[in-house]
Amino acid sequence: MTQTVDQTAQETNFVGKRTRRQDAPEKLTGRTRFAGDISAPGLLHARLVLSPYAHATINNIDVSEALNVPGVVAVYTSETLEMANPDATSRSQAPLARGEACWAGHPVAIVVAETEAAAEDGVALVDVDYDPLPVVLDPVEAMRPDSPLTRLHASKEGGEIAGGGAHAAVGSGDTEEEEQEELSANVSGKTHMKLGDIEAGWREAEVVIEHTVSTRPVHQSYMESQSILVSPSPSGHQLVVWPSAQGMLGVRSDISEALNLPERQIRVESVPIGGAFGGKFGLIEPLAAAVAYKVRKPVRLSFTRQEDLLAGNPAPQAVITLKLGAKKDGTLVALQGKAIFDSGAYPGAAAGLGGYLLASTYRCPNVDLHCYEVLTNKVSVGAYRAPNAPQATFAMETTVNKLCEALEMDLLAFRKHNAFKEGDPTIDRRSWPRIGLLECIDELEKHPLWVNRAEEKHKLPTELKGWKVGIGISVGGWPGGTEPSAAACRLESDGTLSVVLGTVDLTGSDTSMALIAAEGLGVSLDQVNVVHDSTDTMPYSGGTGGSKTTYSMGPAVLSAVRDARQQILNIASNMLEAAEADLEIVEGKVAVRGVPNKSVDLKEVAKMSTRRFEPVYGRGRAGITTSSPMFAAHLVKLAVDPDTGDVKVLDYVAVQDVGRAINPAEVEGQISGGVTQGLGWALFEGYEYDENGQLLTPTLMDYALPHSFDVPQITPILVEIPSALGPFGAKGVGEPPVVPVAAAVANALHDALGVRVTTIPATPERIFNALHEANQA
Amino acid sequence: MTQTVDQTAQETNFVGKRTRRQDAPEKLTGRTRFAGDISAPGLLHARLVLSPYAHATINNIDVSEALNVPGVVAVYTSETLEMANPDATSRSQAPLARGEACWAGHPVAIVVAETEAAAEDGVALVDVDYDPLPVVLDPVEAMRPDSPLTRLHASKEGGEIAGGGAHAAVGSGDTEEEEQEELSANVSGKTHMKLGDIEAGWREAEVVIEHTVSTRPVHQSYMESQSILVSPSPSGHQLVVWPSAQGMLGVRSDISEALNLPERQIRVESVPIGGAFGGKFGLIEPLAAAVAYKVRKPVRLSFTRQEDLLAGNPAPQAVITLKLGAKKDGTLVALQGKAIFDSGAYPGAAAGLGGYLLASTYRCPNVDLHCYEVLTNKVSVGAYRAPNAPQATFAMETTVNKLCEALEMDLLAFRKHNAFKEGDPTIDRRSWPRIGLLECIDELEKHPLWVNRAEEKHKLPTELKGWKVGIGISVGGWPGGTEPSAAACRLESDGTLSVVLGTVDLTGSDTSMALIAAEGLGVSLDQVNVVHDSTDTMPYSGGTGGSKTTYSMGPAVLSAVRDARQQILNIASNMLEAAEADLEIVEGKVAVRGVPNKSVDLKEVAKMSTRRFEPVYGRGRAGITTSSPMFAAHLVKLAVDPDTGDVKVLDYVAVQDVGRAINPAEVEGQISGGVTQGLGWALFEGYEYDENGQLLTPTLMDYALPHSFDVPQITPILVEIPSALGPFGAKGVGEPPVVPVAAAVANALHDALGVRVTTIPATPERIFNALHEANQA
Repeated sequence: MTQTVDQTAQETNFVGKRTRRQDAPEKLTGRTRFAGDISAPGLLHARLVLSPYAHATINNIDVSEALNVPGVVAVYTSETLEMANPDATSRSQAPLARGEACWAGHPVAIVVAETEAAAEDGVALVDVDYDPLPVVLDPVEAMRPDSPLTRLHASKEGGEIAGGGAHAAVGSGDTEEEEQEELSANVSGKTHMKLGDIEAGWREAEVVIEHTVSTRPVHQSYMESQSILVSPSPSGHQLVVWPSAQGMLGVRSDISEALNLPERQIRVESVPIGGAFGGKFGLIEPLAAAVAYKVRKPVRLSFTRQEDLLAGNPAPQAVITLKLGAKKDGTLVALQGKAIFDSGAYPGAAAGLGGYLLASTYRCPNVDLHCYEVLTNKVSVGAYRAPNAPQATFAMETTVNKLCEALEMDLLAFRKHNAFKEGDPTIDRRSWPRIGLLECIDELEKHPLWVNRAEEKHKLPTELKGWKVGIGISVGGWPGGTEPSAAACRLESDGTLSVVLGTVDLTGSDTSMALIAAEGLGVSLDQVNVVHDSTDTMPYSGGTGGSKTTYSMGPAVLSAVRDARQQILNIASNMLEAAEADLEIVEGKVAVRGVPNKSVDLKEVAKMSTRRFEPVYGRGRAGITTSSPMFAAHLVKLAVDPDTGDVKVLDYVAVQDVGRAINPAEVEGQISGGVTQGLGWALFEGYEYDENGQLLTPTLMDYALPHSFDVPQITPILVEIPSALGPFGAKGVGEPPVVPVAAAVANALHDALGVRVTTIPATPERIFNALHEANQA
Repeated sequence: MTQTVDQTAQETNFVGKRTRRQDAPEKLTGRTRFAGDISAPGLLHARLVLSPYAHATINNIDVSEALNVPGVVAVYTSETLEMANPDATSRSQAPLARGEACWAGHPVAIVVAETEAAAEDGVALVDVDYDPLPVVLDPVEAMRPDSPLTRLHASKEGGEIAGGGAHAAVGSGDTEEEEQEELSANVSGKTHMKLGDIEAGWREAEVVIEHTVSTRPVHQSYMESQSILVSPSPSGHQLVVWPSAQGMLGVRSDISEALNLPERQIRVESVPIGGAFGGKFGLIEPLAAAVAYKVRKPVRLSFTRQEDLLAGNPAPQAVITLKLGAKKDGTLVALQGKAIFDSGAYPGAAAGLGGYLLASTYRCPNVDLHCYEVLTNKVSVGAYRAPNAPQATFAMETTVNKLCEALEMDLLAFRKHNAFKEGDPTIDRRSWPRIGLLECIDELEKHPLWVNRAEEKHKLPTELKGWKVGIGISVGGWPGGTEPSAAACRLESDGTLSVVLGTVDLTGSDTSMALIAAEGLGVSLDQVNVVHDSTDTMPYSGGTGGSKTTYSMGPAVLSAVRDARQQILNIASNMLEAAEADLEIVEGKVAVRGVPNKSVDLKEVAKMSTRRFEPVYGRGRAGITTSSPMFAAHLVKLAVDPDTGDVKVLDYVAVQDVGRAINPAEVEGQISGGVTQGLGWALFEGYEYDENGQLLTPTLMDYALPHSFDVPQITPILVEIPSALGPFGAKGVGEPPVVPVAAAVANALHDALGVRVTTIPATPERIFNALHEANQA
């Protein structure tokens, strides 16, 4: 099922071996307890009052009836909760609507009660007096100077993406003096990226293609909804926080800022997390903390699935128009585009990142990209696995296919001709390091499904008789993130090694860290225990995201373990009266090389270290500030029913450059998961609204996640072009597999039907309509 | 009130400044929450069934009635609790009586219930069928070969002292081939220390004095009783423990051993502790953990004061006979002794330590000390502030006074003539380092209360007219402990420094560590925050005890902070484009020396460190394995009513070599506290039993702690003879102040009355009887 193209030769004992995730048994047996499972004596339950209007003035909020409900302890509005930054443009800092509800689902008040049921009863009795206002839903409409405003006091300040982890990694290209453009105040951010002279590009171009696509908001659909427990510490000195969040120090600083409390008065505990995918970089934590701080009791806030869809932070909707110009030989000479990212009710869609991604696959001397972040009366957005990359790649890779058609050029030949390679300039004036884009395309090109694509188009399960088969490809990438990191490790009295981390393990990274530690120390995996700390004491770690955890924390772990190893050898050298250089660690012992019986157990070393020497306590610090971009090339075979637009994905091949797979089992799991989520983008998932801004997909009955029977066999092929910086050559893995999927599927649909669906998800209805329009044309 | 004799000159900004304890506000306002205050959802309460007999066979335990009590969840006996080491000779490993109750108070069963009241009702209904056995209470009687045995299967294995922290520090002298001595199996340990030739000593001696003293068991009387909460972790994977204990990793290993669970499955949390004084090195933790492990729910066990007196682990009763021989010029030439330490029902009295202490004040070429640990049917013992030193010093310093009388020699002159000094050999064949014993005596000799002692004897408050005044002195010491230690520190994004420790703060050590850190980094004290970790992740720390915490952890903290400082300077050097050597840290900034405006905030350095450099994360390891012995010289003035034996202590001067007072306020507090506890030993505190082994002092109505009106003005005088190893020259402080008190008081009583009280506490009754006997003689 998996093929690995190993281009590295570094000999390892543990790294690179398929290893079961250490958290798997607890998770598979249902024993893991998540934030929403944690209780505390005197626990109170919080529930939100959500605005039923997509846009309305709030004249008054009467909480008196709610307070009469037995068990209701308090009801807070933005007026009474008294957060430190009520005017912040960040949803997490100012979580309750202030005078104005800006989407249907905007939290207006929060009810705290002794039971969940009492809180719900209280919610039903909070009486909010609304005056409906005009609703703006379409981001293109919202940009027009004459558009109604999405909030009475629209902000023109561009915000940062909520899940800033990924954003931090990328530059923003060339932002010159902007030409005047008349835009609505709903436009909350603009980025203009330029390279060369686009007009010269058009003059040079022999073939020009323009294509417009659009997407819908897509939810991260983590299994565990947004959840948090906040409790005053027993002494009342600290607020203790058990969040479902991707970064612990980020939660601490968010709460510190929102409550104007010193960071040391907030302790964020490490809690297992049930998925996040970018959607848990900070949303409900300051709100829950503010309530707990007010009532001085433990408070739990845990979203229902409906609340998570209505009031979470999905990926932004996008409308992207690209115009590409190429010479007859396929050389790309002009790339122009307009990318509109719908940020919903708050800034944060990171439109510039979308532009950066559009310019980060193919070499092009003349680039002109306009990116807009636009506010609408929809739920505000957050990061989602490779933020903005599925949208940008859907646009780019379908447009490229159109261009190839016009050029009558092989799809892979065009891509190989123009693909970035080491030394090419990036859009932000740096230089591409050694990347694996070409190698990924090469692998894809060699795959039987591609080689035999002509025959494959005729192979169809009998039950799909009459359906049309399409084979599609796409490439896509992710620039990668970096963050300085630290780690510690301690030799235990039983001879095992504890690796102390502050990272949140989203995807099995603890197991990778354990493999790295086992490799670095020379002990078996079961001798290594990865442990987590609260924010009071944890070694520094940023949030988990941007495909940077293994890449940036791995070196810190390796350094900590090597530090401990040196300490161990030093002590053992004393104990064995042998030179350190002659010692090796094998099978839990320090042994003198070549003297089989002269050895000492690590257990003995540990005991002596706390009696006669110094405790073995390794420390690692890593400061990688250069990312290692990663690429994938995908190949999909699908069948489509031309009568109904029904689609069945039949086969999927995902080639990805992972640098070095620390734990191939985990890497493959990431790729399968990413492709599955990509199929959601491509075919199933999307927020739909009625004209009043009411969400039509507020439950998992309406919002279509791919089911297991929608997902084909996925074959991950790992290309290993080692990173110069990542541990053992590893690059990030998490984001790329979601990136090319929608484009590959759309290209396959075109291959099957000869028509292009330009809006994803490509639902049967949209496919049917596209076919119908083509027939009418 | 305090005089400091500063013999060091190291310039410091924070170290040495009187500083308020950082834990004081929470403790003084009652906000601190201790182990017994912590709750958990579904908390169960455990209560003990204690044996009413001092010695009895247990024929049967019927728990059926107890289980019928509404709310009672379970009742366990040693049979049903199934601990891993039911035959252990350690009370904590085998906490419930097995077939035999060995003291009145021996836990026989444990009842677990939903409420404390239900548990108590259950306790009352546990039906134990006992057959009383002969009771042995007097350790001298217990040693006789014909003594009844204190347990049917008496152990001859000598155990280690429960509070091994202090024990670990001292050697055991010369233990040669033992002569045959017929002893009861109740003797659980023997140590024989020899130096030179005692017979030659007697031949050389011109004056010989023999003296016998005895003491009673004394309770540590920590304010917070033995308490613990144990809960399965939310996932059930770990047992989480909130103990009132002096060492966290020790609790972890005790529980690991008792339950036969890997250490990583036990997490001990850091909890504030309400006093310990050696009595909380491990007693009830495995029991509570075993119960929680059985019921799979959170369980709290919290002793009442009566349970703590009946079933705690007080200091051992001792009977010590010393024989000293000196030449006419006062040179000590022979020291012989027999020291019996009553270990109660389990081994652990560390008799050898008593012998070591007897030989660790005065130079003597010929030593012959026999030390015995004897089992009786009394509660088993534990460590208590300077274990065995108050008893040994009471013996030695009263005998020395008798010798001085016989020699007609000045009390201080004799002591100065014989006191150990640097380079003298220790009893365990090492060499005394630079110690401050002579300097302490010198300071005492200069004190007005001593200089004017003749006049002082006539100064008496008018209300005490007719009382006799006595002035007494004593010296005493403590060998000091060591333990390798580790610490970490992290620069926070707000520019403050978090110092991460695993130590339990008993006495304000966190504040001392903060002072050391502030000094090492060059920031003010409020920029430093000391934080604690669970055993999962804490840097290594042994138990808090033996006066070793500041001494052995301080260097680790200093090293961690200097490491962080170096990292900070490195980053700032990049930011400021200046050489590291030109930088200094002043007032929260890194500044270029001599360039006032060229500086960068630590806050900025912290932020950059997690963006462009490496996180500032300091690591310190210290492995001091040589202790710095510490000495004190005490002077007391008291008045005694010759008619009633009533005593009023009028003035107290405590001179102590502390090496370097990191926080003089804390050091003085320790000295005052130690002297106060010493006054308890001297005059008030002691377990008394009836002939059946029933404790007559099982409550604080019967067991007399000194009241505030019993304690005079205490003047601490700090002598600072710097240690070559301790941080900034610091030595331990905690143990010495309790050591000489009983002897000084006894000597003052003799000075007042001319008679010697040989048993402490010197209650009015004992004083009256001593006077009466003297009159009759």
